[in-house]
Amino acid sequence: MKTIRLFCPATVANVSCGFDVLGLCLDTIGDEMIVTQTTQKGIRIIGITGADLPLKAAQNVAGVAAMALLEVLQPDCGFDIVIHKKIKAGSGIGSSAASAAGAVFGINMLLGNPFSTKELIPFAMKGEAVASGCEHADNVAPALLGGFTLIRGYEPLDVVALPVPSELYATVIHPQIELKTSEMRAVLPTQIPLKKAIAQSGNLGGLIAGLYTSDYELIRRSLHDRIVEPLRAGYIPGFDLIKETALQHGALGVGISGSGPSVFTLNKDLETTHKVAFAMEQKYTETGIPFEVYVSPVATRGVQLINS
Amino acid sequence: MKTIRLFCPATVANVSCGFDVLGLCLDTIGDEMIVTQTTQKGIRIIGITGADLPLKAAQNVAGVAAMALLEVLQPDCGFDIVIHKKIKAGSGIGSSAASAAGAVFGINMLLGNPFSTKELIPFAMKGEAVASGCEHADNVAPALLGGFTLIRGYEPLDVVALPVPSELYATVIHPQIELKTSEMRAVLPTQIPLKKAIAQSGNLGGLIAGLYTSDYELIRRSLHDRIVEPLRAGYIPGFDLIKETALQHGALGVGISGSGPSVFTLNKDLETTHKVAFAMEQKYTETGIPFEVYVSPVATRGVQLINS
Repeated sequence: MKTIRLFCPATVANVSCGFDVLGLCLDTIGDEMIVTQTTQKGIRIIGITGADLPLKAAQNVAGVAAMALLEVLQPDCGFDIVIHKKIKAGSGIGSSAASAAGAVFGINMLLGNPFSTKELIPFAMKGEAVASGCEHADNVAPALLGGFTLIRGYEPLDVVALPVPSELYATVIHPQIELKTSEMRAVLPTQIPLKKAIAQSGNLGGLIAGLYTSDYELIRRSLHDRIVEPLRAGYIPGFDLIKETALQHGALGVGISGSGPSVFTLNKDLETTHKVAFAMEQKYTETGIPFEVYVSPVATRGVQLINS
Repeated sequence: MKTIRLFCPATVANVSCGFDVLGLCLDTIGDEMIVTQTTQKGIRIIGITGADLPLKAAQNVAGVAAMALLEVLQPDCGFDIVIHKKIKAGSGIGSSAASAAGAVFGINMLLGNPFSTKELIPFAMKGEAVASGCEHADNVAPALLGGFTLIRGYEPLDVVALPVPSELYATVIHPQIELKTSEMRAVLPTQIPLKKAIAQSGNLGGLIAGLYTSDYELIRRSLHDRIVEPLRAGYIPGFDLIKETALQHGALGVGISGSGPSVFTLNKDLETTHKVAFAMEQKYTETGIPFEVYVSPVATRGVQLINS
């Protein structure tokens, strides 16, 4: 019986100007998963700590992703999965994506890597759909590949790995309130002004160019969301306070992580990042809402083995 | 009296997925301008060949751009300008931008380059506005800087020079019909579906990533315009014929140049480019509409001195 332990990272989707197309991978926040190859066929979730999630594989994000992979590979064995959940469900930093990504990565590895990591994305998306109601890749792609990822399109799925400037760090502040994803989707209009779409395009292009050239000032000028943030920010208590504080302390940009409630910042160098995190922490205490703050480099690697 | 002769290149704005934010510079199509420093202050357009354009500086694209520059520099001299127009007005490949760019580039050079080429863009935009009714940079930026340019934003103007893969070539087919820019603007909606904006974003991101990595297949997958092309293509007789023919013969992508009527293709390597050009030429003859076809590398340099 082969067993592996995996670190399954949290991720930030959208990244301001990249609504529904960009995502990035974090390094210091993530679940731990233990995947064991067994002689008994099928997938069994044999333990979950840190969250109240279904053990039944067909109802579990990791289980569904794993089953989708097994259906194609048809191996003569099965897998037991243990999940130590550290990313809170509903936090907006890719909790379900981490589980889906970890499951397919682990099984693929135990079977000798029949698929490339990129090829695992569609299987992880099937797991992700259990939690979010639709197949999307903006969290599972960075969770698997690491770094920044661009979803160029879905028909067919086309994921582009973008480079990560070496001094790029993120903070995440997670106000512990519940935001219904369905409600956050409902605030989105079906139509947007062409002018705003053009402005957003310019910023997305600028951000991508900034990533390729490690031009932090260009990244700073590009990290704006004129489309979605104005509609969703009001649902996150203290969003403006966080944003103002982080920018004042040197953040390159601040935005909603996924559909919230977590808010991320991107920053140049670790010192600035700690300053930003500390200032947000100080300031957010005033709201009386419980919260957590994380600091992380933008990870160049996604799901990875933990050496035991 | 110092005199310089300049090549002022044609440009392609929009480039399919980059509506209002992207432009590229051509190499083999362009005007010639002769700029002479004189003791008499002010700007005089002393000759124009190849087009019926106003000689009065205040009504001429090159004149207005030049005057805007002189207003800031206040030199103790003036300039005579001769324009040999080779890019047809109204062709959709940046005819007015070439004149505006050439005028400011030439004067700046004769004065010892007080401004960087990038800093000249706002002055050229003022000239461009005479022709198009509004200040925009999607043609003057590539005409001045060469290569691909991204307009990240206008407030303030933020132009990003993007790299050009070495084997990237363009063709341009110019059906000699008249399209009113005002009419082409009128077909644009003020609102567009959010879903289309997201798909377009993905493609723009993919194209930019493809330019940085010389990934021609990614460029191919990204060269789509789901927003503007469907609305404008019907005004260009034979657009579908051109597109189908070019794609069949290996073009990476096909789109409307600016607001038309010219249609551009991007292609990998010169051989394919000639094949595409030849096939379009053969096919378009069937329409009975007079036209011209050009082949050019995507130029890495913009306006430049012609050695005499």
